[in-house]
Amino acid sequence: MRKPKFKPSAEVISGETADIYFVRTIDILKKEGLNPKATMEVFGSRAGILCGMEEVKALLDEVLPKDKREVWALSEGETISTKEVALRITAPYQSYGVYETSIIGILAHGSGWATAARECVEAAGGVPLISFGARHVHPSVAGVMDYAAVVGGCTGCSSVNGARLAGVEPSGTMPHALILVVGDTVKATMLFDKHMSPEVPRVSLVDTFKDEAEESLRVAEALGKKVKSVRLDTPSERGRVTAELVKEVRARLDLAGFKYVGIFVSGGIDPERIRYFKERGAPVDGYGVGSYISGARPIDFTADLHEIEGRPIAKRGRIPGITPNPRLKRIL
Amino acid sequence: MRKPKFKPSAEVISGETADIYFVRTIDILKKEGLNPKATMEVFGSRAGILCGMEEVKALLDEVLPKDKREVWALSEGETISTKEVALRITAPYQSYGVYETSIIGILAHGSGWATAARECVEAAGGVPLISFGARHVHPSVAGVMDYAAVVGGCTGCSSVNGARLAGVEPSGTMPHALILVVGDTVKATMLFDKHMSPEVPRVSLVDTFKDEAEESLRVAEALGKKVKSVRLDTPSERGRVTAELVKEVRARLDLAGFKYVGIFVSGGIDPERIRYFKERGAPVDGYGVGSYISGARPIDFTADLHEIEGRPIAKRGRIPGITPNPRLKRIL
Amino acid sequence: MRKPKFKPSAEVISGETADIYFVRTIDILKKEGLNPKATMEVFGSRAGILCGMEEVKALLDEVLPKDKREVWALSEGETISTKEVALRITAPYQSYGVYETSIIGILAHGSGWATAARECVEAAGGVPLISFGARHVHPSVAGVMDYAAVVGGCTGCSSVNGARLAGVEPSGTMPHALILVVGDTVKATMLFDKHMSPEVPRVSLVDTFKDEAEESLRVAEALGKKVKSVRLDTPSERGRVTAELVKEVRARLDLAGFKYVGIFVSGGIDPERIRYFKERGAPVDGYGVGSYISGARPIDFTADLHEIEGRPIAKRGRIPGITPNPRLKRIL
Amino acid sequence: MRKPKFKPSAEVISGETADIYFVRTIDILKKEGLNPKATMEVFGSRAGILCGMEEVKALLDEVLPKDKREVWALSEGETISTKEVALRITAPYQSYGVYETSIIGILAHGSGWATAARECVEAAGGVPLISFGARHVHPSVAGVMDYAAVVGGCTGCSSVNGARLAGVEPSGTMPHALILVVGDTVKATMLFDKHMSPEVPRVSLVDTFKDEAEESLRVAEALGKKVKSVRLDTPSERGRVTAELVKEVRARLDLAGFKYVGIFVSGGIDPERIRYFKERGAPVDGYGVGSYISGARPIDFTADLHEIEGRPIAKRGRIPGITPNPRLKRIL
Amino acid sequence: MRKPKFKPSAEVISGETADIYFVRTIDILKKEGLNPKATMEVFGSRAGILCGMEEVKALLDEVLPKDKREVWALSEGETISTKEVALRITAPYQSYGVYETSIIGILAHGSGWATAARECVEAAGGVPLISFGARHVHPSVAGVMDYAAVVGGCTGCSSVNGARLAGVEPSGTMPHALILVVGDTVKATMLFDKHMSPEVPRVSLVDTFKDEAEESLRVAEALGKKVKSVRLDTPSERGRVTAELVKEVRARLDLAGFKYVGIFVSGGIDPERIRYFKERGAPVDGYGVGSYISGARPIDFTADLHEIEGRPIAKRGRIPGITPNPRLKRIL
Amino acid sequence: MRKPKFKPSAEVISGETADIYFVRTIDILKKEGLNPKATMEVFGSRAGILCGMEEVKALLDEVLPKDKREVWALSEGETISTKEVALRITAPYQSYGVYETSIIGILAHGSGWATAARECVEAAGGVPLISFGARHVHPSVAGVMDYAAVVGGCTGCSSVNGARLAGVEPSGTMPHALILVVGDTVKATMLFDKHMSPEVPRVSLVDTFKDEAEESLRVAEALGKKVKSVRLDTPSERGRVTAELVKEVRARLDLAGFKYVGIFVSGGIDPERIRYFKERGAPVDGYGVGSYISGARPIDFTADLHEIEGRPIAKRGRIPGITPNPRLKRIL
Repeated sequence: MRKPKFKPSAEVISGETADIYFVRTIDILKKEGLNPKATMEVFGSRAGILCGMEEVKALLDEVLPKDKREVWALSEGETISTKEVALRITAPYQSYGVYETSIIGILAHGSGWATAARECVEAAGGVPLISFGARHVHPSVAGVMDYAAVVGGCTGCSSVNGARLAGVEPSGTMPHALILVVGDTVKATMLFDKHMSPEVPRVSLVDTFKDEAEESLRVAEALGKKVKSVRLDTPSERGRVTAELVKEVRARLDLAGFKYVGIFVSGGIDPERIRYFKERGAPVDGYGVGSYISGARPIDFTADLHEIEGRPIAKRGRIPGITPNPRLKRIL
Repeated sequence: MRKPKFKPSAEVISGETADIYFVRTIDILKKEGLNPKATMEVFGSRAGILCGMEEVKALLDEVLPKDKREVWALSEGETISTKEVALRITAPYQSYGVYETSIIGILAHGSGWATAARECVEAAGGVPLISFGARHVHPSVAGVMDYAAVVGGCTGCSSVNGARLAGVEPSGTMPHALILVVGDTVKATMLFDKHMSPEVPRVSLVDTFKDEAEESLRVAEALGKKVKSVRLDTPSERGRVTAELVKEVRARLDLAGFKYVGIFVSGGIDPERIRYFKERGAPVDGYGVGSYISGARPIDFTADLHEIEGRPIAKRGRIPGITPNPRLKRIL
Repeated sequence: MRKPKFKPSAEVISGETADIYFVRTIDILKKEGLNPKATMEVFGSRAGILCGMEEVKALLDEVLPKDKREVWALSEGETISTKEVALRITAPYQSYGVYETSIIGILAHGSGWATAARECVEAAGGVPLISFGARHVHPSVAGVMDYAAVVGGCTGCSSVNGARLAGVEPSGTMPHALILVVGDTVKATMLFDKHMSPEVPRVSLVDTFKDEAEESLRVAEALGKKVKSVRLDTPSERGRVTAELVKEVRARLDLAGFKYVGIFVSGGIDPERIRYFKERGAPVDGYGVGSYISGARPIDFTADLHEIEGRPIAKRGRIPGITPNPRLKRIL
Repeated sequence: MRKPKFKPSAEVISGETADIYFVRTIDILKKEGLNPKATMEVFGSRAGILCGMEEVKALLDEVLPKDKREVWALSEGETISTKEVALRITAPYQSYGVYETSIIGILAHGSGWATAARECVEAAGGVPLISFGARHVHPSVAGVMDYAAVVGGCTGCSSVNGARLAGVEPSGTMPHALILVVGDTVKATMLFDKHMSPEVPRVSLVDTFKDEAEESLRVAEALGKKVKSVRLDTPSERGRVTAELVKEVRARLDLAGFKYVGIFVSGGIDPERIRYFKERGAPVDGYGVGSYISGARPIDFTADLHEIEGRPIAKRGRIPGITPNPRLKRIL
Repeated sequence: MRKPKFKPSAEVISGETADIYFVRTIDILKKEGLNPKATMEVFGSRAGILCGMEEVKALLDEVLPKDKREVWALSEGETISTKEVALRITAPYQSYGVYETSIIGILAHGSGWATAARECVEAAGGVPLISFGARHVHPSVAGVMDYAAVVGGCTGCSSVNGARLAGVEPSGTMPHALILVVGDTVKATMLFDKHMSPEVPRVSLVDTFKDEAEESLRVAEALGKKVKSVRLDTPSERGRVTAELVKEVRARLDLAGFKYVGIFVSGGIDPERIRYFKERGAPVDGYGVGSYISGARPIDFTADLHEIEGRPIAKRGRIPGITPNPRLKRIL
Repeated sequence: MRKPKFKPSAEVISGETADIYFVRTIDILKKEGLNPKATMEVFGSRAGILCGMEEVKALLDEVLPKDKREVWALSEGETISTKEVALRITAPYQSYGVYETSIIGILAHGSGWATAARECVEAAGGVPLISFGARHVHPSVAGVMDYAAVVGGCTGCSSVNGARLAGVEPSGTMPHALILVVGDTVKATMLFDKHMSPEVPRVSLVDTFKDEAEESLRVAEALGKKVKSVRLDTPSERGRVTAELVKEVRARLDLAGFKYVGIFVSGGIDPERIRYFKERGAPVDGYGVGSYISGARPIDFTADLHEIEGRPIAKRGRIPGITPNPRLKRIL
């Protein structure tokens, strides 16, 4: 993936997305003329994959005074351990205090998604994964969610803006809606083939009207070498996609000479389900993962002041002074 | 709360936030000249509080042809049961097919947050709750998250734009950062009192430097009748806020004549913790709830076509034709 | 059901099926001239439905001396409670001692099957059940197993001799083998209809080649009013028969005007699965139950001597003398 | 054990023990003149010890046309793994279709018993086991059950016909009934010794009237070197046979000079109980196992057609064509 | 039971049994001339039966100055709830500070034992219980343990000094040792009868050499009407005393005309075991309870100062001032 | 620790602490003139640390006839395994029969305490432990309990007489009561320092009035080098002592230059809690352990006669004759 371009929104810069008490705090400090050099450290509540740091860096670069700032951080996509300091900001407090809410929110949501993606990737052991969860989050974060999924190891994602952020081509097959509107799976696949540019892979969704194995053969017979894969998305009402179904479709395709047609599986995929397919030897060629990634719990991050004008300080429950972490690199 | 004003973003309208396969489907259908009147039904995967429908309505109102549309739905804030149809759209398929991703994403995230908020509200049995979770989500959804929390029953929220959406005043006390910068809790509280306009309640955070009970008495003695409440936010490193701590602070405040000072509790609050305080008779006057609401799992929604040009149809696993639901009201 | 006719086999009468030590015991007692009037009581190790007593009675009637016998028992099909005396024999010990093995074996196996059948019947709450488990037991007991299933409440069974014993018509639809040999479900159903006498119900097995809903419609369209039901037997590799599948097939049949076609369900049926269908409102018209009944654990029965020539006696661990049970009736 | 002689019963040959739908299927196929060469494969639902194949072979040898048959199978007593093909029949379908019920029933029941026996044998680690469960099954299968127990590894069994099938001497000690009729354990043992031929081992049951240790000494003192073992069968009402009881009886026998008297244990014996005795070092010389073997759940077997006239075929959920299994050997 | 007489030991009075820091505290306060009137409250960590208060009262009566003391308390044998104040002392601190260790130790141990006894008593529902646990505690507390058991509801106890404290006759049957030394249960019981004064009940222990049922009959036949009961104490090596054993012994005694002979049960008795006998209808006439009572966990008590010279005070975590408890009565 | 001096109390010698049935047994045997040489073996019901043997030896030395005794035993503090013989007495039965209750009671209670202490010691891995549980047992056993704790591995104990028995100096810091009476922690610590002799370590209890970290610094600043440690005893109402609190207090002391001040932790300490501190790297310098040791369940001991005048004998359930145990040493 290419380096993403993040630009802080006007709403974030203006403090609209902040907790009101930070707005008030900066107001008070300004009125009192208090603007000490303060060091804030940020850590996550559990281990995972760090994501959001590029966006945080873009924000800090814009708001911190260039000559009075020092920012150390871990990199996008690195693993973090529980309570490990991932970001340390030293700058006049008034310049960044109001952004605490947004900074740790970006890291929380992004790292939660990337960590869930990584769990799936590790379970899949080399079989590619596509993030399919845009439909389960608010569209305002569909893009950053898909970006985080790719940071966590997915090879692609379905949302247009997520793919752009992540620097990949958007991935997708066809929805049930197309087949229902057209009225037949084979016909819908042929229309797809007719109108889509050649570099878009032909992946046919085969569970809409008929038995998946029967439909797979019909599609393969109709389109021949053009078919890249079939997608199995059997709903839970019909028993979900099972390892045996994958094996049977594989066997029937092979028996009919369609060994080149891949099998792509979606519907309720999570690490446990991926392991289930793997342990039973189901020949899956790709997975679409939805709400396991998109609905992942954010990793809560905490920001603490540890030095004021060089003096170690901390609230009760925390250790005063800089927390050593040799993994940090200076980013600003 | 006032009726919120939602305006679909350019990114949503343009299809940027959609799954690529919907973009392609509309492309194919246009090239084929297929644009049947289609009925799509939307339902959630589990019971909860519906939230996001106002935003969905604003989107549909903008994209559906005014003379060929019929939209039925449940209302913002209503309870929904598992798999109950909450939205039914009948319109030419090309006019809305590409928005399936955004529509169900808005409902999924919003209903997840509102449902979690409602669980807290029900546990609290009348004690007011403030949504404090903006710091645990990406700033692009901080506002809609806080809005959903208020839909679910919170009396306030901490983010500036969330409060505006929900039509309430933003709520907040003071952060540990203010006290650490100022160097003393009493002094910080006095500066707050000095600079904030009178209608902002004086709520002092009392666990930064000293024992909570001791600090509560110091603040009450210094500010007298001006103090509305103290906030207890003891970190887990110091054993969290316990029911006994609340009772003890109450007793020591009362013994010293400060019966009018309320006690506001935050830090790891969830329905179980709220019930814990309630069952032990801890005299809590308000709760700040963070990641239990903001990190709530979205309620996945599903959209299915059930009629094409008046003909019942459905993919395997679903029942063809309109699903009766007398609770639906026509909204467009 | 009619009263069954049981005739003890030569193997049982000759002592071939007995434990060797009973054969030896009778040998010793004969050599010693010991043949006291002895009272033996028989009880089961757990509660259930008594089955096998008719067969035991037929055996005792043949072997006990007509003028020196007194046999009290509970009736075929009655409930028994844990350790309740179900049979009491008083007769010269030499006349029946060698049959202890066979007597309690008949009761053990029969009561185990009947009890399992009753559990299914109670779960089904009025929906008829057919015993389909002959294939899971040795053919020497296929008949008595099916007989016991009917004693327990099944309305029919699949084995020819089981049905004869139970006094019912044998039940069955068609096997997958017929459809595979013929090559098409519709064609196989039409051949069935062509050759079977009119009183045999036309029940078509619809999961062999195509989607169950699609095949159900094909069969209904081809045979019309002649079709009594379709049988769903979806294998676990395809997710088993689910409640939603039953509902969908029902809906699609109804939508096409085939409201009179029933739905019969088989495959892994047990009380838990029956309750699952019932709780989810699946419109099942009949169940085929296999190994839950046929593989039921026998209810172990124990036989103890309690009186010798009128004297109370018992081995350690048992109470000497007759155990009162007013439910017993004299049968010989 | 010698090779057993099985002869299919008239009831099996006539189709009396079959599911009615196979009877009807053959009827239809005959009327239609359909009799393709068909290949049926049979596999078990879980791993275990295969038993029943000798009986199946005897049946197939009688019914399949000698010049048009090919039967491959695993051998009696071999281990089978889950879903492993254990039997493959290729022959004109009309010649064997009706026997599917009996074939898989024989294998199901036999393999269930043999597998349970093997579990006990493995737990016992060399200590001999006798099958004592004839009393817990219908007498029609007492013989095949005991035969299967010996196939599974028992060194003997108690039923007369089971022993004959398995080619061993029937085993047994004496029942409580003999002692109760005679009135004293020592006296009963002496009568046993007086009348039984010398090759029958003298094993005295010592828990009927007195403390087991006391009675063991009385018997040993009365019969001296003639006693082979004592059998402990303490009922659950008296706390079952415990490891400590075995050790104590051993110690008291040894102390009195009867080191040559063995200890045989029965009553609720299963693999867990056998391991319990072993782990506690109880010097058991033999076990009698009852319902753990005789009440074992059958291993359900499934029969599927995989080729018709050489063409791969299969119902949905199964893989068409021959399933490779190099372990199979041709038996007919 | 009569009111017990407790006299504080010299070791307690001298401070030998105190925690050293109380000794030092009194030393410091004396040197500083600090001796304020202080109010100490004592509460238990869990609910139960209060025991030890009589002994505490005797101690306080001896050490507190008669004119400057006020002691309020709950009474011996009353129920206490969790953290309920059970004792409140107001007196010059130097007069009692050093006894904190002993006061709460007496209450902790005594209440632990009495509470366990009460649990047994409640399970037994009227069947008398004897405390048999002296053998499981240090002899220095055997007496107070047995006293506490009687406070908790036992009708007797086995230790000589426990019985004296509790004001009852010591209870006991005979040990296995007597029978082993004498060599026969009947003979031992006859010697017991010969030498013991008539008011000592004749209770014969019947599991030493022979089967319990057999021995019970032998004893009853030898001593006739003199036998009050038999005691069953079957060791775990022989399966413990079971409900069925009790019923069988009862039945065999009754059958032989010894209906007047009671059955007393001991060995591993606890509330669960008592309920087991009760639920199975075992006719037990008395229980001996050992380590369930004697090994009961003490109920930890805590002592806190709540007023100094009339001023409310408390350490962190506690509420300053007198804790209201209307159940307290003034005892000194 | 020095060898302790135990002297049997008059109450034990007189039989006052015995079960009445031993008193009666000796009475009967004397009247009958039965006084055989008897061998009694004593074993514990579970594995642990043996404690009490020194006290038992002192008792036996006083009561057994010097010329007719042979006593073998394991040593104080040795590990014992389940049911291992720990003591074997051979002597005229009348000389020791009445002491069975006291002998096994001493071993039971002592070994229970020592075993619990050992578990804590093993968890602590070198960090010293002080027994603080005198307050949770009756004062009559406070001394022997603390002695047993030292036998189990504690380096000290808080009771005056326990320390004397164990041959160590009594340990303790200061109670909350001293601080409450004096009114300030620093002032109380200074008075302690003023009046206590120099060899008593200055350990200040720092959780009474203020935050523990703040109070630790105040004490360290006031007393400087004289302070040996601070004790953290935070009550559960305030979240107990956590690993993070220990680390924070350490960090704040170090930052202020008080690296020499140790941290001693008490309050609900048990092996699990010790491991919790250890696993989280909390720098604890010593633990005070209370009711985990003092409230430990006694290890029940059993005494059995195994020989009478050299003849092997045993009650049912036990093995007659001497049980070999090469670990035993002759002690009398």
